Amino acid sequence: MQSPKEIVDIMMAKDYFSQWLGVEILEIKKGSCKLKMTVSKEMLNGHGTAHGGITYSFADSALGFASNSRGQKSVSVETSISHIKPLVENDIIIGEAKEESCSNKIGIYTIKLYKASDTSLVALFKGTVYRTSEAW
Amino acid sequence: MQSPKEIVDIMMAKDYFSQWLGVEILEIKKGSCKLKMTVSKEMLNGHGTAHGGITYSFADSALGFASNSRGQKSVSVETSISHIKPLVENDIIIGEAKEESCSNKIGIYTIKLYKASDTSLVALFKGTVYRTSEAW
Amino acid sequence: MQSPKEIVDIMMAKDYFSQWLGVEILEIKKGSCKLKMTVSKEMLNGHGTAHGGITYSFADSALGFASNSRGQKSVSVETSISHIKPLVENDIIIGEAKEESCSNKIGIYTIKLYKASDTSLVALFKGTVYRTSEAW
Amino acid sequence: MQSPKEIVDIMMAKDYFSQWLGVEILEIKKGSCKLKMTVSKEMLNGHGTAHGGITYSFADSALGFASNSRGQKSVSVETSISHIKPLVENDIIIGEAKEESCSNKIGIYTIKLYKASDTSLVALFKGTVYRTSEAW
Repeated sequence: MQSPKEIVDIMMAKDYFSQWLGVEILEIKKGSCKLKMTVSKEMLNGHGTAHGGITYSFADSALGFASNSRGQKSVSVETSISHIKPLVENDIIIGEAKEESCSNKIGIYTIKLYKASDTSLVALFKGTVYRTSEAW
Repeated sequence: MQSPKEIVDIMMAKDYFSQWLGVEILEIKKGSCKLKMTVSKEMLNGHGTAHGGITYSFADSALGFASNSRGQKSVSVETSISHIKPLVENDIIIGEAKEESCSNKIGIYTIKLYKASDTSLVALFKGTVYRTSEAW
Repeated sequence: MQSPKEIVDIMMAKDYFSQWLGVEILEIKKGSCKLKMTVSKEMLNGHGTAHGGITYSFADSALGFASNSRGQKSVSVETSISHIKPLVENDIIIGEAKEESCSNKIGIYTIKLYKASDTSLVALFKGTVYRTSEAW
Repeated sequence: MQSPKEIVDIMMAKDYFSQWLGVEILEIKKGSCKLKMTVSKEMLNGHGTAHGGITYSFADSALGFASNSRGQKSVSVETSISHIKPLVENDIIIGEAKEESCSNKIGIYTIKLYKASDTSLVALFKGTVYRTSEAW
């Protein structure tokens, strides 16, 4: 069986959107991970702040890495995000995925996004994955 | 007061991420809209399908346009998305935002994403916005 | 195989909480249902309106009946509800469950709750169920 | 201004549904609380386990107490719950509400429900409230 790091390396190599986002993997363990990214101009919305899709996408990558790192291919079923604080260009954010529950078929994760500069909470994400029987 | 189309044109002009996604506005009315986009290679994840953040982002743009089109600046507070069907490169998707409720301070919208080719449901999004007192 | 009505009758006979709520089944089909209930004094919260748990519970019963009516035992995995309009004692509400998607393992439903008196929307519920392999 | 305990006592005196549930307040602070309740036969559903509405209602009471304890009347806008582990009659559950964010108008809370006997996680709840300008 492959290690969490090996699985995430395989995923990341083909994950063109996480590459576009500039997602950097700071830490990966079975069921959890810690990621980093920087808000660029291309990520802004009509209010001049980071598009809600950017923080969601970053958290969703964290969900994917944390849940798949256990070795079973896992797909997101239902996710929600609370947008708490706006981000502007050049803000650096950290995302930490934590496994709240993991049964045979269903895994539940919370992901907290915070600003690297002052550790203030930017968004709170909750995700449910379906764990397929297929191995990485 | 500006029309829904004028407001969305102002938003879209600065919404660099919706531009990157290639979001096309098919229809815009007070409280609703219909959008279109095409999945590109840069939008794929490690499973070889569209990253969950792509469908979320597309739906979140629809939420932004539909809710702001009423003339009051509105910001997303809480959103959720059910991922139903995977998308691959070159798939074309349509997003339709519908206003379920709109009070003085809070608006609630559902957005359905479906494939243009066969109208099958791809994702189901629900979003709650806070309607600020600031006008466009 | 049992009919949707037979399955829901079996469920309802042991569903002591739906009985306590006074849930009345107006209609049941494969994947959908229509229910009715009346807000009693015991259902109020500290604001003098129906407790959020009452509208959630009513919608969750609708989710259970609609999803199990297909014949496979199904359990709720993740649900969300937007509370739109407060209810007071003696208000009568109708709940309509609609199947948005149903795959082998996962079903997604929306449930709309509205007041019987003026059909105004009271709450909007979205639920995801896991469909077990066990039959009713 | 009244203390968190005084506010919750006022709320609880009229909260007939939390009384019916047998909600016991173990701890109350500004923005957080800890509650306890026991699953009774009347709380079961057609699967013979606690109805999803019971754990939701318990968590929603915790949300109400935690958010209102700050002194401003606050109403639930959008909530979600992940059902993780089934409960049976006589199970005792603990609910802990934690404030994740609190701005002028919007508060976000997570509530964890666990079994008193073995501290295993039963459900995970996330709630967003709108903080009105009215004081308790």
